Amino acid sequence: MSTRIKTVYRVKAEASTIEARARGISVEQSVEMPLEPIDDPFVINEIIGKVEEIKDLGLGEYEVRCALASITTGYDGGQLINMILGNTSLQDGISLVDAEFPADIVEAFGGPNIGLEGVRARVNAKGALSATALKPQGTPPATLARLAYDIALGGIDYIKDDHGIADQTYCPFEARVPMIAEAVQKAGQKTGIPTQYLPSLNGNLDKMRKQLALARSVGIEGVLIAPMLCGFSTFQTLKKENPDFLFMTHPSMAGGPMAAEFFFGKLMRLLGSDASVFCNYGGRFGYAPERCRQISDWCLQDAPGLKPCVPVPAGGMELKRVPELLDFFGRDVMLLIGGSLLAAKENITKEAEAFCNAVRNR
Amino acid sequence: MSTRIKTVYRVKAEASTIEARARGISVEQSVEMPLEPIDDPFVINEIIGKVEEIKDLGLGEYEVRCALASITTGYDGGQLINMILGNTSLQDGISLVDAEFPADIVEAFGGPNIGLEGVRARVNAKGALSATALKPQGTPPATLARLAYDIALGGIDYIKDDHGIADQTYCPFEARVPMIAEAVQKAGQKTGIPTQYLPSLNGNLDKMRKQLALARSVGIEGVLIAPMLCGFSTFQTLKKENPDFLFMTHPSMAGGPMAAEFFFGKLMRLLGSDASVFCNYGGRFGYAPERCRQISDWCLQDAPGLKPCVPVPAGGMELKRVPELLDFFGRDVMLLIGGSLLAAKENITKEAEAFCNAVRNR
Repeated sequence: MSTRIKTVYRVKAEASTIEARARGISVEQSVEMPLEPIDDPFVINEIIGKVEEIKDLGLGEYEVRCALASITTGYDGGQLINMILGNTSLQDGISLVDAEFPADIVEAFGGPNIGLEGVRARVNAKGALSATALKPQGTPPATLARLAYDIALGGIDYIKDDHGIADQTYCPFEARVPMIAEAVQKAGQKTGIPTQYLPSLNGNLDKMRKQLALARSVGIEGVLIAPMLCGFSTFQTLKKENPDFLFMTHPSMAGGPMAAEFFFGKLMRLLGSDASVFCNYGGRFGYAPERCRQISDWCLQDAPGLKPCVPVPAGGMELKRVPELLDFFGRDVMLLIGGSLLAAKENITKEAEAFCNAVRNR
Repeated sequence: MSTRIKTVYRVKAEASTIEARARGISVEQSVEMPLEPIDDPFVINEIIGKVEEIKDLGLGEYEVRCALASITTGYDGGQLINMILGNTSLQDGISLVDAEFPADIVEAFGGPNIGLEGVRARVNAKGALSATALKPQGTPPATLARLAYDIALGGIDYIKDDHGIADQTYCPFEARVPMIAEAVQKAGQKTGIPTQYLPSLNGNLDKMRKQLALARSVGIEGVLIAPMLCGFSTFQTLKKENPDFLFMTHPSMAGGPMAAEFFFGKLMRLLGSDASVFCNYGGRFGYAPERCRQISDWCLQDAPGLKPCVPVPAGGMELKRVPELLDFFGRDVMLLIGGSLLAAKENITKEAEAFCNAVRNR
């Protein structure tokens, strides 16, 4: 008997149609055809999706719980998302809000390489973690390296490339990454804090492998990756091929018919995110505090076979919000400050230091 | 001077906030930081996104036109989508509804390998084209091959794997594809119609390359690929590496903050879809007829440097709808019938023949 992934969808529907819609989802996400012509007992018993529960949430919304056969995923990242949401993403009024993954799925994907404790250990941290992003794109490598140096002197734990910094002619990966790595390492020797630089991977699998190898060759131990851009199979492959590397995931293109809680809190963790960047409340993205709490809870909750993933609220972070955010998220968090740090310009080392101290000393 | 991609977003906003929101999009999709600290003239002139127009559509909706620097894409598929929608996909109430790509982008991505005329030439067709999908997943290779043979005997032009058929233990790609290819070729010799089998690629780039090579080795000349599952860079790479292959694109996971018209009609064509499958009106997906018309128009419209892409309406197709759909779409179309054909069971060859004749003889 194949195990089942228990998926949970929120569906807008009339009371008179909800049973048919729920059945429609379970069929769409498995055999995708009318059931009558199917006579193979294996398909009937082991492949066809099942509706397990329909709950009326009121106001024309329903929660539909389905059970989808794990074997249909082939244990591949792309096929996993194909089976749990795929075509249903094209339906109006349906979103995927949760899923429980059985042990064979958890084992196959394996979750974070190093997880919360590993992410802390890399920078000798005990509590909350600090991070920032190098911006803006268009800046040449030497200037970015200088910026990274100035920020790292403030003692920040992690510095990532902005996700828009890819491999453009004006700032090639091969030119940029060794320079920034060296700058950050030099600053770390001064501060005693081994600040980690996470370059942003881009392009296809071949190119990302080369970028990872180059990063490794200059002493880098982690990267930024956007799974919705590169594809889940690409992320899955790189994570497995580099079990000592830290993978921070970026949310680009993750908007759509998948609840943010599930995507950032569960799916990224299952696939192997050590640190999952998501949109913070009170910033320029409109997430509610409860949504952010749920993402954080799901990143961190006990889950057999999966290390905890560091929740990384981001998007409109400011120094003055640090106490509030640590009150809200607790110490198992990485606070990512971006543009507002860069606004400090020539005072950036001081501003970074103030940010790091505010994060670390709580 | 870098060329610019002209993107068009539809934005729900209050009149008092729309200017700030529009500016927010142009910043988010370029430098992603406050503009004040930026002093590099190259970044200011060549990188920062611009708002070109804001049009009030009424009822609290606005159309925002931005100009984003082409060079920020690095001419990579993943980075392209990162730059035109990426983080903005995470904002409520914004969707990407259109984009004009300048010549350097068109040249870099290159569009369909063989396009509408190539897709017709492969099967000696002159007008509308017929297609179907092998289902359900869970069926063993020999049974799928037999099904493919029976359908091909009816004279259908293209037979693709259902997009859920990947590389599962019960139906491995390596076992399935040669058997189905042989069955379809044998049927083609009987009918005189060189029915083409399009296996579904899955997994990472390494695996897809192997699958393509295997397909090629057994005389297959085209494949099905789901760009939102494998990532745009993966699709871009495979299309370029196999310039003689036909790529049919599948819509799985394409729901979300990108208008279907743009995704299926323009973006898939730019990236290289020879035949773009989308959700038909009147089926189990709720697309409106005008949306389908727009997709079809955009697949086919004159666009320098891009072959026309075959529009492939699908999802709830039935034999009896063929005349209506050919009236609606004209002859530059491929009609994809799925489950309702399979419901014919032992009469499937006859049913396929009826479908093909209805499509071909108009």
